[in-house]
Amino acid sequence: MRGHGLAQGEGSGVRADARDNRLRILTAADEVFGQSPQASTDAVAKLAGVGIATVFRHFPTKTELLEAVLTQRLERLRDQALTLASSDNAGRAFYMFFSRVVSESAVKLAIGEALIAAGGAAGEDARKAAAGLREAFGSLLAEAQRVGAVRRDAGLPEVYALLIGASRGATARHLEPEVRDRMLTLVYDGLRPAS
Amino acid sequence: MRGHGLAQGEGSGVRADARDNRLRILTAADEVFGQSPQASTDAVAKLAGVGIATVFRHFPTKTELLEAVLTQRLERLRDQALTLASSDNAGRAFYMFFSRVVSESAVKLAIGEALIAAGGAAGEDARKAAAGLREAFGSLLAEAQRVGAVRRDAGLPEVYALLIGASRGATARHLEPEVRDRMLTLVYDGLRPAS
Repeated sequence: MRGHGLAQGEGSGVRADARDNRLRILTAADEVFGQSPQASTDAVAKLAGVGIATVFRHFPTKTELLEAVLTQRLERLRDQALTLASSDNAGRAFYMFFSRVVSESAVKLAIGEALIAAGGAAGEDARKAAAGLREAFGSLLAEAQRVGAVRRDAGLPEVYALLIGASRGATARHLEPEVRDRMLTLVYDGLRPAS
Repeated sequence: MRGHGLAQGEGSGVRADARDNRLRILTAADEVFGQSPQASTDAVAKLAGVGIATVFRHFPTKTELLEAVLTQRLERLRDQALTLASSDNAGRAFYMFFSRVVSESAVKLAIGEALIAAGGAAGEDARKAAAGLREAFGSLLAEAQRVGAVRRDAGLPEVYALLIGASRGATARHLEPEVRDRMLTLVYDGLRPAS
């Protein structure tokens, strides 16, 4: 049981509270900045149900908060890729993941741009998360090639460039979901082995 | 014959001089900003061999100069598309033009970004030029589909999104030309009719 006095101290209850708060703030920030990357830190504090001072204690600047949100999104995508890599339908897993990255990219790019507009840049954490995502995508690709769902002469550099390109194409043109899906059909037909 | 006195007047010699200067400035600006969109207007004046006052008379702000350069690039691409549209190998024309747009995109995007960083936005002229480019690309696509070089179930919206996406993918990843070409091979195989 947590004593009220611990709130001022260094007990494990306080550390657990701090972790809870950090997670609550990150979850709220993901929601708030996902809707509008120009939103205020105030809006994040409100949704998280904590005071603005608590937000600033965990994330001294909006840049740090934005970077944490971006890193978390990249890590979540990497985790999804790792989970899918052990699926028993490697081809479906690869194409499903490709589509997921493209459809989530609008939000991710907007957060990345807000980060740059706030004077920041993707820092060490976000860069590591992006590298982890690329690596996990590479595993999915290798498995899909092994089972013959993706042509074997396609290397990771060009397939990854295509993933980024399809993501940016969908975002730059504010594509309707149906047009995006038709664009992905063209991309996927180019990735499949010649029959 | 041009009289020296005309330099202060409204004679046709002056208008021709002004047109020459405008063209010389635009050509220099395309070169200078193509290398480095953050370059100064001074550098443009030097390369054009005119005084800085002359540059500002034609383009009162750097934003206007950047927009004129971007518009000129888009119009040039559109003209190339229109020329290629009357080629007797519609398939080759389509894929050649696609590759050209992708390989030129790094410069165009950098200029577009400098324009936004300079507080501007693609104005009416650039938007009209972009719409003209899309329309000319649509003609190339239609011809390539007519001769069976591009699958007929692919619509302009998704093929154009793919063009923009491939351009941005190549730029975002600073792709080596060989990787870019391998990426385009995948894209083109997706665009070709199933054999």
